[in-house]
Amino acid sequence: MNKLIVFMIFSTSSIAFSQNLQSPDKQLKMNFIISENGTPQYELLLGSEAVIKKSNLGLELKNEQGLTSGFSVRNTTQTTFNENWNPVLGEYKTIENHYNGLMIELIQNATNRKVHMHFKLYNEGLAFRYEIPTQSNLNYFVVSDEVTQFNLVGNHNAFWIPGDYDSQEYAYNETKLSDIDILKLDMNNGIGMKGPMTKTRIQSPVMMKTNSGLYINIFEAAVVNFPIMHLDVNTDTFAMQSHLVPNAIGDKAYLQAPAKTPWRTVMVSNDARKILSSQMILNLNEPNVIEDTSWIKPMKYVGIWWEMHVGKATWDYAGSQNAQNTTDGSLKPTGKHGATTENTKRYIDFAAKHGFDGVLVEGWNVGWEDWFGNWKEEVFDFVTPYPDFDVEEVKRYAQSKGVQMIMHHETSGSVSNYERRLDRAFDFMKKNAYNAVKTGYVGKIIPRGEWHDGQSMVNHFNYVVQRAADYKILVNSHESSRPTGLHRTYPNYIASEAARGNEFNAWSNGNPPAHETILPFTRFLGGPMDYTPGIFEIKMSHYDPTKKEQVHTTLAKQLALYVTIYSPLQMAADLPENYEKYPDAFQFIKDVEVDWDDTKIVEAEPGDYITIARKAKGKETWFLGAISDENARKTEITLDFLSPGKKYKATIYEDAKDAHWEKNPKAYAIRTVEVTSKSKLKLNLAAGGGAAISFVPLN
Amino acid sequence: MNKLIVFMIFSTSSIAFSQNLQSPDKQLKMNFIISENGTPQYELLLGSEAVIKKSNLGLELKNEQGLTSGFSVRNTTQTTFNENWNPVLGEYKTIENHYNGLMIELIQNATNRKVHMHFKLYNEGLAFRYEIPTQSNLNYFVVSDEVTQFNLVGNHNAFWIPGDYDSQEYAYNETKLSDIDILKLDMNNGIGMKGPMTKTRIQSPVMMKTNSGLYINIFEAAVVNFPIMHLDVNTDTFAMQSHLVPNAIGDKAYLQAPAKTPWRTVMVSNDARKILSSQMILNLNEPNVIEDTSWIKPMKYVGIWWEMHVGKATWDYAGSQNAQNTTDGSLKPTGKHGATTENTKRYIDFAAKHGFDGVLVEGWNVGWEDWFGNWKEEVFDFVTPYPDFDVEEVKRYAQSKGVQMIMHHETSGSVSNYERRLDRAFDFMKKNAYNAVKTGYVGKIIPRGEWHDGQSMVNHFNYVVQRAADYKILVNSHESSRPTGLHRTYPNYIASEAARGNEFNAWSNGNPPAHETILPFTRFLGGPMDYTPGIFEIKMSHYDPTKKEQVHTTLAKQLALYVTIYSPLQMAADLPENYEKYPDAFQFIKDVEVDWDDTKIVEAEPGDYITIARKAKGKETWFLGAISDENARKTEITLDFLSPGKKYKATIYEDAKDAHWEKNPKAYAIRTVEVTSKSKLKLNLAAGGGAAISFVPLN
Repeated sequence: MNKLIVFMIFSTSSIAFSQNLQSPDKQLKMNFIISENGTPQYELLLGSEAVIKKSNLGLELKNEQGLTSGFSVRNTTQTTFNENWNPVLGEYKTIENHYNGLMIELIQNATNRKVHMHFKLYNEGLAFRYEIPTQSNLNYFVVSDEVTQFNLVGNHNAFWIPGDYDSQEYAYNETKLSDIDILKLDMNNGIGMKGPMTKTRIQSPVMMKTNSGLYINIFEAAVVNFPIMHLDVNTDTFAMQSHLVPNAIGDKAYLQAPAKTPWRTVMVSNDARKILSSQMILNLNEPNVIEDTSWIKPMKYVGIWWEMHVGKATWDYAGSQNAQNTTDGSLKPTGKHGATTENTKRYIDFAAKHGFDGVLVEGWNVGWEDWFGNWKEEVFDFVTPYPDFDVEEVKRYAQSKGVQMIMHHETSGSVSNYERRLDRAFDFMKKNAYNAVKTGYVGKIIPRGEWHDGQSMVNHFNYVVQRAADYKILVNSHESSRPTGLHRTYPNYIASEAARGNEFNAWSNGNPPAHETILPFTRFLGGPMDYTPGIFEIKMSHYDPTKKEQVHTTLAKQLALYVTIYSPLQMAADLPENYEKYPDAFQFIKDVEVDWDDTKIVEAEPGDYITIARKAKGKETWFLGAISDENARKTEITLDFLSPGKKYKATIYEDAKDAHWEKNPKAYAIRTVEVTSKSKLKLNLAAGGGAAISFVPLN
Repeated sequence: MNKLIVFMIFSTSSIAFSQNLQSPDKQLKMNFIISENGTPQYELLLGSEAVIKKSNLGLELKNEQGLTSGFSVRNTTQTTFNENWNPVLGEYKTIENHYNGLMIELIQNATNRKVHMHFKLYNEGLAFRYEIPTQSNLNYFVVSDEVTQFNLVGNHNAFWIPGDYDSQEYAYNETKLSDIDILKLDMNNGIGMKGPMTKTRIQSPVMMKTNSGLYINIFEAAVVNFPIMHLDVNTDTFAMQSHLVPNAIGDKAYLQAPAKTPWRTVMVSNDARKILSSQMILNLNEPNVIEDTSWIKPMKYVGIWWEMHVGKATWDYAGSQNAQNTTDGSLKPTGKHGATTENTKRYIDFAAKHGFDGVLVEGWNVGWEDWFGNWKEEVFDFVTPYPDFDVEEVKRYAQSKGVQMIMHHETSGSVSNYERRLDRAFDFMKKNAYNAVKTGYVGKIIPRGEWHDGQSMVNHFNYVVQRAADYKILVNSHESSRPTGLHRTYPNYIASEAARGNEFNAWSNGNPPAHETILPFTRFLGGPMDYTPGIFEIKMSHYDPTKKEQVHTTLAKQLALYVTIYSPLQMAADLPENYEKYPDAFQFIKDVEVDWDDTKIVEAEPGDYITIARKAKGKETWFLGAISDENARKTEITLDFLSPGKKYKATIYEDAKDAHWEKNPKAYAIRTVEVTSKSKLKLNLAAGGGAAISFVPLN
């Protein structure tokens, strides 16, 4: 036992044991407690302000006594850790991993079973996990429930989405904790694939703000061989409790000692920007395990995709959801198929002309004529193109133009089919020079009874990334469980969707203007998102006068998203012909980088606005994105992130004076100014607007 | 509508429609009926004797009206079919497929949904299936129950095993139908992996005998994309009803029109031999789909296997069920590991010396130290040998001796793991010159909640066979669902276990002497079994004086099993050193063939005795096997199956006069006589005994 320091400063009720831990900057304090009946508990304070009041820790097990009470402390170990590391791709060249750690070795006296509680206290928050070490009385076990509590101290304002087992593609709700009620939500929201939900269960990460101005975020990191954690909210007491997504027969997790749960995290700060700049989630994941990372490159891409969303083309060659179309072996073309060789060449030409790295083609393979909604196991084989898509010719043409092709693997949720075909699918990709795959899981999961967020599916998503690494393939997963920092360990996990992306604006009530100001505080904490920004033709009436749908931003805000959204994989999602109409605005998308040496969170308020500046990897160039919610916003930013003494040409892409996300979304203006690190810039963001700036050094 | 012939000869209650069908020999009559409420029904008679009285047909569907009543007949079609075909491997060179067919097109008036009932009446029995044709009102659907009835007319004697979802490895019970009661069975029977059962649910095939001497067998054929059918028995009325094995969430089958269920079969004869000679089940399967079958060869083999069952060696290198043995990366050898390079070479030498085609090695790969009983997903990777098994050296040595190696893939029931690794496993096999695999599924199935006999698992077992065909690999599946004739379609499906094999005699209450006289009337109807006969050291006290277990036959009966059990894959299961002690008896195993031009069922009575003669493929040589149950038996057989005019040297391996399965099992005698097709031979079978004869032409 080393450095055992016992404090008893937090709790006044009867306790059996208590030990304190402080963050490196001494602002955060965590107290670990064993209650009188042997229940492990913790509390968290920022300065003198309680963040989490006394909350239980524990795991319930199937067919045996729970690991919830009757514990005593055998040993404790305190550590300080401080290390810098360099991500392969990222927001920063170097990331600091600095925390004070506490490991509590618990023993359940009646059963002689051991649990180790691991705590890490960073300046920006607390992380803890359960470890079941190797021991004679506990080898294989089934977690039937995790009973981790996060007992909040007040009726905070919260940004939340419902605890759906199958989808995170919801717009965020901003309510008091007491007003969380999933049953009152309008579910006519364009989500085709919803799973079970209950009244007051929400997903993590949940972002909160207290009346006193504290920002609190509850999330998890390093979800490996474990289900996703949702949160059951007590709307009277403001207590939250972990809810693990079950499997087909109601079990949560099958484990064998030694085993560790994911990290549970509570980030807290009185400065919202610290939530965004925190690298806690990444730090809590294991280091990179891929030895040769030379093939892992950032990527800007275009693709045959948005034209299907706006109704110009179809994924299917032969008539959606009409299986009979294929029963006689003859596919009857719709005439609108997007993924033709000819159209692909058009995108390759466009990518080559404008300097994009890759071209995605969706709908290239047989299966789309009857792919969705019927829990069908064998939908796609991932190797058979439609008759009008010539894989060999596309390969030849793309290589001649120096453009990489991105493969699309929609699974329709049939994971059993995908896993049994995965090696063949990856072989096919490599033979045809595809080095990146976009996966899709739109549908009820097969094996039937499993959910997108269960342990089996978490393992599947991670397995695909691991197996892809064996083939040197980058993975961009859509409809997967939301990421929790695994891209540190597998940097080929270049991006994922796992939230409500830009596509919803094309055919549903869409994403409200505040949406992109909330995502960085929630979904993005876990990893890069393939949000697919860059829509210039904002209103769908452009394609069909009867359509009311639109993107809920200005055009300038679409540009700003390339900076406010961190992702080493970014799509220029609109159609080539739309970009060619606005070459001056398009220039920003051509110029913007997607991999960075540094990031500065200039301004941030969840649900209201975000301004971020980023320095291009290995260059002196900076980019800045500023976005607003449904309100117009004036701000003045200091450019002190720029290198002192250097002069920069700043090209500012901003909302025109009369711009408005709904009334006049395409009105933008471009101006250039010369600036230094001492300059200030005034920005006027329209309602639902934004500004994007490139800073190119002049000396 | 062609050849519509309506009879109304069977039923006197009010019916809406009736149509008759006769077998080619006119002995069997089937009547199809639509009852007053539109329920499809059928009856079956042999001559004037009722076999199945009026029984309902129908499917219940999930979330929609069932396909059970409200039907009328739109059209009927009668056909006569007669075709000969040649199996790649088999009991006969040529198989006749001769039946009268009836197709009834039904329409459910209220829903406008169509069902086609297909009937085939062979001389030896009835087969029928449901077809859901392509139609606008029924595309995707979920079968929640099949309500096919088999209403028997009396309290027949039955041979049955309990309707376990996970195992068929039971000894047969012989009772009246009224006495079926699973709850009364002694379940201390050595079966490690049992699934759900209920009181009066039994498995098909069930073999019955009526008081009047009729033999009736209820089974199914061509189970593809459908669960296995068990039977719920009404012990008062002697009605049986189909029970389909469910999936994890209680559904039975996910189908899309056009879809066909497996065939339901009722075989009936007043001669038990006709049940055994029937090729109905094979005929009901689709023809061979493998174009090049040159690589599909019969196989006699030895292997490192029985020595583990008798306790001489271990599968695992490092201590069974002790995962901790591997957590530090260092395996600590048990010292008893069977699958060493050295021991494998000993078996290769033995195989080469005695003319065996192959050598099986179990326990060659990492995972066995912690493989069973914990629903563990990642147990084996199928490509990593133990340190003492040199794959390269074994390959070299086997090739130098002209012996084929048989790979072993135990999955522990973790099908998800096996499917995702299958291509790698088969690649590894081919690289190392393995052209046959023995698969194993000892364990609760993963995906968790699935059962061995559910639709998903049926699909898995069939998928492995199909994928193996792509690699030109023969499959011998153990712990799979029992076969239903798919080896016609995929002749590389060379054998399976799916019943209580010889191994149970080594470490459990074993297989009673009657066991092998029942299997041909039940399990073998679906396909070849890898029963692993040929045990010479009958009593386990040979290995350990404290052991009471023994094989429940004489040594001579072990020889006879090579003929009474049809399988193109046969093991000589005992240890080389045991065979070398009895070289004269071993000669029969060396001589006996495993692929045949002709088969004669000489005598047969389920549960009592069986005598079968078979003519070797492409040769004039015949082999005969005769076995008895627990009773001694004298019989005289006429050799009229031999070619007229030819002289043969018959070598007769028989029980010695004082032989007895329990008291004196190893007492055998060998004699030779010259015989012709006019000769008769007297055989004296001991209690639990048998006789094996080879007939070699002398001219």
